[in-house]
Amino acid sequence: MLLSGTVVVDADTVLHGGAVVTAGDTIAFVGDRADAIDQYPDHERRSFDIVAPGLVGAHVHSVQSLGRGIADDTELLTWLFDHVLPMEAGMDAEAMEVAATLGYLECIESGTTTVIDHLSVNHADAAFEAAGDVGIRGVLGKVLMDKDAPDGLEEDTDDALRESERLIEEYHGSCGDRIRYAVTPRFAVTCSEACLRGARELADAHEDVRIHTHASENRDEVATVEAETGMRNIEWLHEVGLTGEDVVLAHCVWTDERERELLAETDTNVVHCPSSNMKLASGVAPVVEYVDRGITVALGNDGPPCNNTLDPFTEMRQGSLLAKVDRLDSTALDADTVLEMATTNGARAAGFDRLGRLAEGWRADVIGLTTEISRATPVTGVRSHLVYAAHGDDVQFTMVDGEVVYDGEPTRVDAERVRERAQELAEAL
Amino acid sequence: MLLSGTVVVDADTVLHGGAVVTAGDTIAFVGDRADAIDQYPDHERRSFDIVAPGLVGAHVHSVQSLGRGIADDTELLTWLFDHVLPMEAGMDAEAMEVAATLGYLECIESGTTTVIDHLSVNHADAAFEAAGDVGIRGVLGKVLMDKDAPDGLEEDTDDALRESERLIEEYHGSCGDRIRYAVTPRFAVTCSEACLRGARELADAHEDVRIHTHASENRDEVATVEAETGMRNIEWLHEVGLTGEDVVLAHCVWTDERERELLAETDTNVVHCPSSNMKLASGVAPVVEYVDRGITVALGNDGPPCNNTLDPFTEMRQGSLLAKVDRLDSTALDADTVLEMATTNGARAAGFDRLGRLAEGWRADVIGLTTEISRATPVTGVRSHLVYAAHGDDVQFTMVDGEVVYDGEPTRVDAERVRERAQELAEAL
Repeated sequence: MLLSGTVVVDADTVLHGGAVVTAGDTIAFVGDRADAIDQYPDHERRSFDIVAPGLVGAHVHSVQSLGRGIADDTELLTWLFDHVLPMEAGMDAEAMEVAATLGYLECIESGTTTVIDHLSVNHADAAFEAAGDVGIRGVLGKVLMDKDAPDGLEEDTDDALRESERLIEEYHGSCGDRIRYAVTPRFAVTCSEACLRGARELADAHEDVRIHTHASENRDEVATVEAETGMRNIEWLHEVGLTGEDVVLAHCVWTDERERELLAETDTNVVHCPSSNMKLASGVAPVVEYVDRGITVALGNDGPPCNNTLDPFTEMRQGSLLAKVDRLDSTALDADTVLEMATTNGARAAGFDRLGRLAEGWRADVIGLTTEISRATPVTGVRSHLVYAAHGDDVQFTMVDGEVVYDGEPTRVDAERVRERAQELAEAL
Repeated sequence: MLLSGTVVVDADTVLHGGAVVTAGDTIAFVGDRADAIDQYPDHERRSFDIVAPGLVGAHVHSVQSLGRGIADDTELLTWLFDHVLPMEAGMDAEAMEVAATLGYLECIESGTTTVIDHLSVNHADAAFEAAGDVGIRGVLGKVLMDKDAPDGLEEDTDDALRESERLIEEYHGSCGDRIRYAVTPRFAVTCSEACLRGARELADAHEDVRIHTHASENRDEVATVEAETGMRNIEWLHEVGLTGEDVVLAHCVWTDERERELLAETDTNVVHCPSSNMKLASGVAPVVEYVDRGITVALGNDGPPCNNTLDPFTEMRQGSLLAKVDRLDSTALDADTVLEMATTNGARAAGFDRLGRLAEGWRADVIGLTTEISRATPVTGVRSHLVYAAHGDDVQFTMVDGEVVYDGEPTRVDAERVRERAQELAEAL
């Protein structure tokens, strides 16, 4: 396919009058539109105002999509223990599949082509099937909780790890390696030492399997871990093996100097979730300091009950705006830095090589956007437009691994039917 | 017209299976859909998922629309003096009219039916004409700057006030009283005492004319006013007559205890602009304290160069999220409080009675929204949905004073032509 328009190659380079040509699951050409047509005269042609890399949602909870809006304006512990976890515990396999499908639809409709997805304890298969069906790229993982978890969600340590291993065998590398696995402890508070160390062993035993967990989102969480282990949360995770370039830590709001050093030294990936941190009143993550230390920081929308959207453009804008007001510095986290977080940094966290830029030989995950909208007029700088003015609704076209998965409508799934069933199931829950 | 759907009457009341019937510029009926059809069998019928009051953008700069994205990620003084003010100074009457039209189109397309609009020093007529053409409700004012302003924007005090008076005579109460005037000093830094006192006199001399200015947005501004007058900024404004129920103060980020008392005692309207305050790194306004003191707080998107959108839903969400993280309290500024800010409080700031609720006898400013979107599914609480999940793009229908001004497309203006001309003019500037 030959996709022409203003091509955002990456956070540094924009080609006006450009084109991207895909062949199979790979980008074959990026350059001038006229040259593209010369070299690929028979390719199907599509034209957009902006052609950009698909964005990476590096921390999402697709299976919480049925809970959009269930606990707005409530205190965090009430939110988690009275609303979100009971909802997860009450979901059967069908509810889990519908929720995950809805979440992935929202992603591909708004420009996210890759997710790192924190599922639930039960019925993880349903989400893997949903990701396969929708056509999104994903690093998914069943949640591990073997202590202090609510009824219906706490498991025996060995059972939980064994089930994770089964899922790895079943789904890791599936759909032409579009779907991969991350071992996914919920967080240190609900996981024993054996569980956390077991997660590291599982990841080490399988090539390209990641580790994905929440870390230091909340002050109470940090205090609990410190009381139980005598260590700060990130130090504890490091102690049990959960740091490193294959580890994705969501949030990292409350870290001290030593923990930040640890994150940098071990090349651990941090996922900033600004809207979630704001709405749940968790705090402001020290993202500028992380970036200054060379830590890979990606972006995540977290879940629909705490955001309430999976729109990656909302999150880019929010990441930048929150850093600016927090530091009283209007130059903080500029558009290019944030765009890098949502593309190449997200790809790095997810562990896919050749992902997050539009370049020859890279994976063909591409989005097309319109700017023929009053709120998007005029466009001054294209990358800045994407971060501060664009919205997921501007996305007209989404391609993953060279396949068109969204073209005004999702191509592989009946979205209307999914939405209807989701509304019914949400009302029943 | 008979508009049926889930009717959001105001921040307290929602009618499922409801309807709003309009007759001329007024709401004739709000209640059950079946009753509405019984009583008004011959009215044209339209159906939406949600029917809500039109929202109020209580501090906008429509004429800055050509500068969307011109100075992202720059320091505030550079932003203002090297980009925004020179742009305003360089705009002729056509550029001003196109910019204002574009701004008003963005408003009605995304659910804003009323604006309090800070124009520029020159060519204010163009914006009044544009507001008349687009069909939006507005309280507009030519900007006053008689000291320390850039070339091309500084005026003689008497000339500036005389020109304001001419505009009042020409436009205040025009278009069936849909368009009104606000005397609009830019801010205390660029206005002499004579100018500020003159603004008060002008407002007092004309019924329903408001006063609209920026106040205490920035720490340097507050320090400058204090150095010049020996008073805190709000005390100074109070001293020269610029407090009171007819006064609209945008921002109010940096206020002390005495200033907050003054705002409350005088019933002065405050406009919170969270996205602008974040992006320009101005700071976090103490909005929860204002609300607790009973001060009327409305919401504003400010201008496209500092936001970069006029979407009122973005601003409701942002207002709530920013308060939550600032106070580390996830219950702060809940959905209903924010919805009140964007409706009845905004109407109060604008000075229009019977505006901001869907009730019998009130002005027929109504919007219709869809929720048939993946990112809007499921809807749990309707008011909460509007604040946290909805987006301006969900608005399908906008009515002002009983007239349909947007119905998928703006009804009175050729939006495509405006956008094309805006892009050309922006490139030329």
